[in-house]
Amino acid sequence: MTLLFAFPEQAALARIMSIEQGDWEWRHFPDGESYVRILSAVRGKPAAILCSLNQPDTKTLPLIFLAQTLKELGAAKVTLVAPYLGYMRQDTRFHEGEAVTSETFAVMLSRYIDALITVDPHLHRHHDLKESYTCECKSLSAASLMAEWIGKNIKHALIIGPDMESEQWVKEVAEEVQAPYIVLQKTRHGDRDVEITLPDIGRYKNHTPVLIDDIISTAATMIKAVELLKAQGFADITCLATHGLFAGNAYDALQKAGAAQIITANTIPHPSNGMEVAELLAAECVNPRYGEQSRQ
Amino acid sequence: MTLLFAFPEQAALARIMSIEQGDWEWRHFPDGESYVRILSAVRGKPAAILCSLNQPDTKTLPLIFLAQTLKELGAAKVTLVAPYLGYMRQDTRFHEGEAVTSETFAVMLSRYIDALITVDPHLHRHHDLKESYTCECKSLSAASLMAEWIGKNIKHALIIGPDMESEQWVKEVAEEVQAPYIVLQKTRHGDRDVEITLPDIGRYKNHTPVLIDDIISTAATMIKAVELLKAQGFADITCLATHGLFAGNAYDALQKAGAAQIITANTIPHPSNGMEVAELLAAECVNPRYGEQSRQ
Repeated sequence: MTLLFAFPEQAALARIMSIEQGDWEWRHFPDGESYVRILSAVRGKPAAILCSLNQPDTKTLPLIFLAQTLKELGAAKVTLVAPYLGYMRQDTRFHEGEAVTSETFAVMLSRYIDALITVDPHLHRHHDLKESYTCECKSLSAASLMAEWIGKNIKHALIIGPDMESEQWVKEVAEEVQAPYIVLQKTRHGDRDVEITLPDIGRYKNHTPVLIDDIISTAATMIKAVELLKAQGFADITCLATHGLFAGNAYDALQKAGAAQIITANTIPHPSNGMEVAELLAAECVNPRYGEQSRQ
Repeated sequence: MTLLFAFPEQAALARIMSIEQGDWEWRHFPDGESYVRILSAVRGKPAAILCSLNQPDTKTLPLIFLAQTLKELGAAKVTLVAPYLGYMRQDTRFHEGEAVTSETFAVMLSRYIDALITVDPHLHRHHDLKESYTCECKSLSAASLMAEWIGKNIKHALIIGPDMESEQWVKEVAEEVQAPYIVLQKTRHGDRDVEITLPDIGRYKNHTPVLIDDIISTAATMIKAVELLKAQGFADITCLATHGLFAGNAYDALQKAGAAQIITANTIPHPSNGMEVAELLAAECVNPRYGEQSRQ
């Protein structure tokens, strides 16, 4: 019985999810302020908002207006389904005086929602969304989608992960594909300045490298990895990521660097989308924990 | 002792305010997320944030990050100085299912600030900011700035207010200028669709009309009023407003309609700025209620 209120960017994903859609309107007044109106009856029903939180600065206010209004109109439960969850990187004060945006964003958003469902959140220093979010939280993994895509499309894959922290996740994908894996050594000097080194992969000469990561943003890591692999004689290199943010010209740059294929999940709409998260999200939306049972 | 942290758009206004400025940084990561860092020592000091809330959807998150971080770093008090305050129009549910953004925005912002100082907030159905904002509130009036501008620049002014609701404020300006005033009859059919009628002004033929309003957004009201005045033979028509939002091509359209002069206060930076709010705001910032005394 959950009603799904999708943000315009997520309209295509919402259709595939096969959950009854709620009717709502979001537009801007001439002065740039948001206008939000809910047109479906929501009293007593669980409601889910489908909104990926890339470019969060422009979406957060309308999202809060929608969530608050659903509550005011008597929705039994308000779940935010954010296939991509933003503000996960600045989770500590790296330098004196910095805003810990990850914490502030989570605490603020938690006030307006009862539950949060997301895919591969960028947990780095924190290990659980519950360390910041005070609502119910469910992190789904796209590892099985990646494994499935690789299994169907790549023969003799060598799975390559971005850094030591991702090893557990890379290993999970590799085991499902029954392929070997390695991880890169990564040192970050700035937003766009990343140094990486490749372990010795001489014994994988007859394998096809598949670089995997949770997010491609500037693509700096992927580009350097592709260049290192090409320098070692690999030609057919695939880049796979859950979330394709592709800041600026990152997508073009990664193609030019020599990636033969770039495939992302459709958590953020992009021409590279090749892995479908609809079923994964829909199953969780109608999970009793997040749906009908909440009315009891 | 108050430290003033100005948003980039308010840099010019901040310089004129002659309050010691705090050093801070706001930039965007390549993926569009905001990065905020406070570089001045704030522990034990009252801090003021100078941020006009036009185009609020893009400014609210960085504003919250800045306010929250000032608190975390031990600022004695955090005052938001918003020369223009956004989300003041949708203060009730005009149609079923609408988000009452005015209320939600006020409640959210109040959690992060101790006090709010603004100029001519667009109070319509509400009469006091305290009906929505739960922090200390101070509304300053630009009526004296308008009266001063008219006194210096216009001879034999006829002050014309936009609607009945503004009569008290229009009367205040007119009395200070010692000029006669009238108000228009206004009926709003949509964001940009406004019907107005002009009372009989035959006896003011030798006066110079000065249209005044709190906000010029689409300029729909001002344009129609200018057209009606021109049809009655008036040539030298001045438009005066506290806040010049000028949505889209509103400024050009108002000039083309025949406004001889368009003058606004510098609450929002715009070529039409001709009334200076710096002194008004600075006096309130160092007012014991909002400044040093708060440390006791």
